[in-house]
Amino acid sequence: RHGEAERTDQVGVVTGLAWTEVGGELLTIEGVMMPGKGRMTVTGNLRDVMKESISAAASYVRSRAIDFGIEPPLFDKSDIHVHVPEGATPKDGPSAGVAMATAIVSIMTGIAVNKDVAMTGEITLRGRVLPIGGLKEKLLAALRGGIKKVLIPEENAKDLADIPDNVKNNMEIIPVSHIGEVLQHALLRVPVAIEWDPAKQVVPIAAVDPADDAGASIAH
Amino acid sequence: RHGEAERTDQVGVVTGLAWTEVGGELLTIEGVMMPGKGRMTVTGNLRDVMKESISAAASYVRSRAIDFGIEPPLFDKSDIHVHVPEGATPKDGPSAGVAMATAIVSIMTGIAVNKDVAMTGEITLRGRVLPIGGLKEKLLAALRGGIKKVLIPEENAKDLADIPDNVKNNMEIIPVSHIGEVLQHALLRVPVAIEWDPAKQVVPIAAVDPADDAGASIAH
Amino acid sequence: RHGEAERTDQVGVVTGLAWTEVGGELLTIEGVMMPGKGRMTVTGNLRDVMKESISAAASYVRSRAIDFGIEPPLFDKSDIHVHVPEGATPKDGPSAGVAMATAIVSIMTGIAVNKDVAMTGEITLRGRVLPIGGLKEKLLAALRGGIKKVLIPEENAKDLADIPDNVKNNMEIIPVSHIGEVLQHALLRVPVAIEWDPAKQVVPIAAVDPADDAGASIAH
Amino acid sequence: RHGEAERTDQVGVVTGLAWTEVGGELLTIEGVMMPGKGRMTVTGNLRDVMKESISAAASYVRSRAIDFGIEPPLFDKSDIHVHVPEGATPKDGPSAGVAMATAIVSIMTGIAVNKDVAMTGEITLRGRVLPIGGLKEKLLAALRGGIKKVLIPEENAKDLADIPDNVKNNMEIIPVSHIGEVLQHALLRVPVAIEWDPAKQVVPIAAVDPADDAGASIAH
Amino acid sequence: RHGEAERTDQVGVVTGLAWTEVGGELLTIEGVMMPGKGRMTVTGNLRDVMKESISAAASYVRSRAIDFGIEPPLFDKSDIHVHVPEGATPKDGPSAGVAMATAIVSIMTGIAVNKDVAMTGEITLRGRVLPIGGLKEKLLAALRGGIKKVLIPEENAKDLADIPDNVKNNMEIIPVSHIGEVLQHALLRVPVAIEWDPAKQVVPIAAVDPADDAGASIAH
Amino acid sequence: RHGEAERTDQVGVVTGLAWTEVGGELLTIEGVMMPGKGRMTVTGNLRDVMKESISAAASYVRSRAIDFGIEPPLFDKSDIHVHVPEGATPKDGPSAGVAMATAIVSIMTGIAVNKDVAMTGEITLRGRVLPIGGLKEKLLAALRGGIKKVLIPEENAKDLADIPDNVKNNMEIIPVSHIGEVLQHALLRVPVAIEWDPAKQVVPIAAVDPADDAGASIAH
Ligand SMILES: [Ca+2]
Ligand SMILES: [Ca+2]
Ligand SMILES: [Ca+2]
Ligand SMILES: [Ca+2]
Ligand SMILES: [Ca+2]
Ligand SMILES: [Ca+2]
Ligand SMILES: [Ca+2]
Ligand SMILES: [Ca+2]
Ligand SMILES: [Ca+2]
Ligand SMILES: [Ca+2]
Ligand SMILES: [Ca+2]
Ligand SMILES: [Ca+2]
Repeated sequence: RHGEAERTDQVGVVTGLAWTEVGGELLTIEGVMMPGKGRMTVTGNLRDVMKESISAAASYVRSRAIDFGIEPPLFDKSDIHVHVPEGATPKDGPSAGVAMATAIVSIMTGIAVNKDVAMTGEITLRGRVLPIGGLKEKLLAALRGGIKKVLIPEENAKDLADIPDNVKNNMEIIPVSHIGEVLQHALLRVPVAIEWDPAKQVVPIAAVDPADDAGASIAH
Repeated sequence: RHGEAERTDQVGVVTGLAWTEVGGELLTIEGVMMPGKGRMTVTGNLRDVMKESISAAASYVRSRAIDFGIEPPLFDKSDIHVHVPEGATPKDGPSAGVAMATAIVSIMTGIAVNKDVAMTGEITLRGRVLPIGGLKEKLLAALRGGIKKVLIPEENAKDLADIPDNVKNNMEIIPVSHIGEVLQHALLRVPVAIEWDPAKQVVPIAAVDPADDAGASIAH
Repeated sequence: RHGEAERTDQVGVVTGLAWTEVGGELLTIEGVMMPGKGRMTVTGNLRDVMKESISAAASYVRSRAIDFGIEPPLFDKSDIHVHVPEGATPKDGPSAGVAMATAIVSIMTGIAVNKDVAMTGEITLRGRVLPIGGLKEKLLAALRGGIKKVLIPEENAKDLADIPDNVKNNMEIIPVSHIGEVLQHALLRVPVAIEWDPAKQVVPIAAVDPADDAGASIAH
Repeated sequence: RHGEAERTDQVGVVTGLAWTEVGGELLTIEGVMMPGKGRMTVTGNLRDVMKESISAAASYVRSRAIDFGIEPPLFDKSDIHVHVPEGATPKDGPSAGVAMATAIVSIMTGIAVNKDVAMTGEITLRGRVLPIGGLKEKLLAALRGGIKKVLIPEENAKDLADIPDNVKNNMEIIPVSHIGEVLQHALLRVPVAIEWDPAKQVVPIAAVDPADDAGASIAH
Repeated sequence: RHGEAERTDQVGVVTGLAWTEVGGELLTIEGVMMPGKGRMTVTGNLRDVMKESISAAASYVRSRAIDFGIEPPLFDKSDIHVHVPEGATPKDGPSAGVAMATAIVSIMTGIAVNKDVAMTGEITLRGRVLPIGGLKEKLLAALRGGIKKVLIPEENAKDLADIPDNVKNNMEIIPVSHIGEVLQHALLRVPVAIEWDPAKQVVPIAAVDPADDAGASIAH
Repeated sequence: RHGEAERTDQVGVVTGLAWTEVGGELLTIEGVMMPGKGRMTVTGNLRDVMKESISAAASYVRSRAIDFGIEPPLFDKSDIHVHVPEGATPKDGPSAGVAMATAIVSIMTGIAVNKDVAMTGEITLRGRVLPIGGLKEKLLAALRGGIKKVLIPEENAKDLADIPDNVKNNMEIIPVSHIGEVLQHALLRVPVAIEWDPAKQVVPIAAVDPADDAGASIAH
C-alpha cells in the first residue's frame, strides 16, 4: 500500500507530495477531531517548518470558519490531531500546507476527501498557494501511485514545460492560486457558508468563496 | 521473568516486540488510568518517535471512543500513564504503536489483554497498521518468550518467506492491517460500541467495527 | 507574484522590506484575528529578534487600544496569528516592527492596508520608529516590486543622499518618526479613537493621535 | 549520621540503596505532602531516569489509591515533594523505584516507615519489582549503616550466592516481587483498603492486597 | 536621536546607562501597562541577568505597592511589558535594575519620568542600590547625551575621584543607596502612599518612604 | 557595605556564607512576599542545585506551616520571590538551604532576622541540617564581616578543631542539626504554632517545635 493512492474517500485523509534527494513520494496527511478544549497536536517526526505550516493552515481555517460552514465554537470544544506517517521518517518544509488545510477543513466539516487527488503547495494565512520545489519528482511519484488529479501552485505552472508528456497525459494537473480552488477539487462536496451570530441560530447561506485574492478563480 | 510472556491476563498490560542490533526482545507496555484531568504521562526512557506513537495511539482511541464503548467524558476525567520498563534502557521507534493503542483501549474499557499474544506494528491516526523492521528477530524473541500468537503488519506478510519453519510452526502468526483486527485477537472480549448523546443515556448497540479501511477485515 | 506589490488592498496584509547579503526584497506580513482567548501565534521561520519585534508591536497596539478605536476586551476574546511567508526562509531582525504594528492595527480595526505602500523601521513600545540598515537595497526592491510609496525611519533620511535618482524620482519616500505617521499613510482610513469605560457604551471621539513623541508630527 | 540508618521511624522517610563505581551507599528518600493542587516536585539533583521512577511510583499509588486506604481526591488537594539529599550529588537510575513508592504511600496514609529496613528495586506501573545492579555493594553499604532488613528484587535472589556469609548472617535479606510485599515489611502497619464512592462515605474493608501479579505473595 | 536624552518627560520611559568594551552609552528603558492578567513580558534581546533584574525590580515594586500608592489588585488586572531598544543589540548585566524599577513605578502610578535624569545601579528585592562597573564610560556617555543629572550607587562614590573635572562640573552626579532616593530625583512628583484594606476604600496617607535600609536617606 | 553584616534586623533578609576557590564570603538572601497565587520566583544567577535548595526549603516550611503559626491558605494567596544579589555572580550548591528556609519563615511570619547571625547548611525536607564544605573559609568571611554568631551543621563540628583560635574566640559558633534550632537563634522571636481547621478560627497553642528528628534539641 505504501506509495499508492488511498483506496477510499475518507474524512481527514489527504495525499500530499514530498520530495527528497532520492525522488518524490506520496505523503499521507491524517487528521482527526475529538471532543476537547481547543488543543492542537502534531506528530510524525515533523520539523519546525512543517509544524508551522500546520499552524498557519489551522489559523487560516479558523479565521474563515463561517465561510466553510464551521461554527466557531467548535474549535474550542474540539482537539485536533494531525499526523504524518511514517513516524520514523523526519519531515520538513512548507509544501504540505495546502494538504494540511484541506485535512483540517475535512475533519471540521465532516466532508470526505477525494482519494484520487494529490496536492502540493505552501499555504499562507490568507489561503494563498505559494510555489514549491521538486515539481517533476512529485508528479512522477503521483503517477506511480495511481493519482488521477494533482493540484500544483499557479506559480509552478511555468515549470510544466519540463515535465515529460507521459506524466502530463496520464494525470490531470491543475494549477491553483488559492485554497478555495483546492477545496473545490479535493472535497467530495463544497462546504456551505453559514452566517454566525453567537446569540442566534445557524443558517446556511451560500457556497463557499473564501478567496480574498484577485488571482484566485473559484469557478475555473 | 524478563523476556518471558506475562503469567496472567491483565488490564493495561500488552506485550510488544523490540528489535536492536543485538536481537529482538519482548517489550512490556503498561498502562494505568487514574481519576484526573485528561493528562497523559509517558515514561520508560522513551525517545521522541516512541512518544509520538503513544500520542497517535491515544488520539486514535479518543477519536473512536464510542466505537469502543468508552464514554468520551472519561478522557477528561482521567489521567493516563503509559510506562515501558525497564527504565534504564532507552527506547525509540514507531513499531510499538499497535501495542500502545491496545493498552489504552484495555485500560479505558477495563477489558484484559490475552497474555499469550504479542504484537508489532506502527499505528496511524486512522488505526491502520504500517510495516516494521526486524521481523525475524522479533519473532524469534516471541518464540523464546513462550508467546503463542504474534500479530504482525499485513505489509510484512511477504517477509514471512524468510522466517525459519520452526518459528512459523510453533506460533500462530497473524498479519493484520487495522487495529480493529488487533483488538479482536488481543482483548479477552470484544468492546461493545455505544451511542453517545451528551444529553442522554448510554446504550450498547453492537460489536466494535472501528475500521474505516477497506483493507481491514475484522471478521477474518 | 513573488517580489511584487499586493494586487488588492487587504485587511492584515502589509508589505515590509528585508535586506540580506544578496540584496533587498519585499516581505509580506500577514495577520489574522480569530475568536479566541488572547493568544498570539507567530510563524514563518522567525528568529528571536523578529519575534520580539512582533511582541513589542502588539504591546504598543494593546497599550494604545482606545486611541485606535479598539475596545480593550477584544484582545482577550481574540487570538492573533502573524505569519511571514515563505516558511522555508529564516527571517530575523527588528526592522519589520512598524509593518507588524500596522498589520495588528489593521486586523483589530478591520481597516485595510494600502497595497501600494511598503515600509521599514524598528518600532519601540512608545511607537517610535528607529533606524534600520540596508536602505538602498530595500528601496531598490520596492521599486522593482512596483511599490509607489515607501515609509522609512526619520533617522535614515540622511542616507537618502546615497540613493540613485531614478529610485527617488519613481517612488514617494517618506521619513517617519512615529507609528502614527505610518498608519496615516498605510491604512485606507484613519482609525477613530473611542472613550472606554468598562461599564458604559463606546463612543467615537476623534481621529487617532497616538503620538507621545514630540518629534512625531501626525499632520505633516 | 551520613551513611547510617535513620534513628526513628518517620512518615515519608525511606532508606534506599545506591551503587556507584566507588561502592554502595545508603540513599535517603524524603517525601512530604502539603495542602495543594496535585503538583509533584522532585529535587536532589535527580537525572531523568530517577525522575521517571518517581513518576511511575506516584502513578502506581494513585491508580491503587483505595487499596491503600487513600481517598482519591486527596491527590488533587495535595502537593507532593520528593527530595533525595544530598543536593550536590547527581543521582540517576530506576533502582530507587520501590523506595519512592513506599515514601509516597507513607505520606499519603500517614503510616511511618520502619527505620531498620532498606530496599532496592525498580518499580513498574503494576507494582512489580524489577531486578537491579550492584547487589553486593548495596548490601555491604546496608550492613555498614546498621540496617537490619534489606528488601531486594526476587530476580536478584540468584545473585545472593556471591554475597559473603557475614553479610547474609547479619541482616535479613528478603527477595520481593511486588510492592505489596515491600509495604508489608517497611510500613509500621498495613494500610487498610477502603471502598470509594464519590457520593458516599468512606468505609474500611480489608487489609491491603494491591498485587495483581500472580508471583507476588502478600502473606509470605 | 540615538544617544541623546529624551525630549519630553514621559510615563514609563527611563534613561539607563550601559557599558561595553567600546565605551558607554545611553540605554532607553520603555515600560507599558495594559489591561491584562498579571503577565510580564520583557523584550529587547535581553540576556538572563538583565531579565532577572527586571524580575527583581517588579517584585520590589509589587511588595511595596501601597507605599507607592498602587492598589495591589492592579498587578493582577494588568500586563506589563518592558522593552529595551534597539532590538538587534544583545544586552546583559544587572546594572539597569534601578532604571527598571523606576519604569515600573512610573507606569503603575502614571507619574512621568524627568527626561534629564539618567541612572545606573543594581537593585535588590529590598530596593537597595548595589555598585556597578564602568562608571567613567557611563558618565561620559551621559554627558555626550545631554543628561543633566546622573544617579549612581553610593558604593561607587569613591570612584568619582577618577572622573575628569569637566564631567563632574557639567552634570549633577548623585550617589544613592536606595530606590527611594532614585524615585525622588527621577519622578516628576513623589508617589503618595495609600492604606490598603481589600474591603475598604483607598486613602492617601503620606509621601512615600519605602526605605527599609538605614543607609538610605530619602530627604537628603 | 559589601561583605559586611546587615545594619538592621529585617524581615526576609538572611546572611548566608559562600565558599569559592578564592575564599569565603557573606551571601545575602532576600525574600519578599506579595499578594499573589502561590508562585515562587528565584533570581540572582542561581544554578540548579541552589534553586532546588530553595524549593526544598519552601516545601519544608509549607509542610510544617501551622507549626510556624502560618495559616496554610497564605501560601496560595501569596507569591514569594527569593533573590540572591549580586546578580552578575553565578551561585550554586546546597549549603544556603537553611538560610533559604529562614528567609521564607521570616517573610511568612513577619518576624525579623537577627542581623548578627550568619548560617550555612544544606536543608532536607524534614528540616535536618546536612554538612557543608569550606567551613574555615566561611568562618573567616563571617569574622571579617562583623558577624557575631554563626550557625554551622552539627556534622561539621568535628572540623572546628582546624579553625584558628582567633576565629573561635571572637564569634559564637553554634552547631545545629535541625532548622528548629536555626530559627531559635536567627529569628527575633520564636514563631507560635497554631491549630488549623479550615472551617474554624485560628488559635495560638505553643512555641514552635517543628523537629521530628531525635537529634534536634530545640531548647538547648
Ligand atoms: Ca517510506
Ligand atoms: Ca487556477
Ligand atoms: Ca533487559
Ligand atoms: Ca489480515
Ligand atoms: Ca523568496
Ligand atoms: Ca516625518
Ligand atoms: Ca555523601
Ligand atoms: Ca518473595
Ligand atoms: Ca546603538
Ligand atoms: Ca545618598
Ligand atoms: Ca562580590
Ligand atoms: Ca546542637
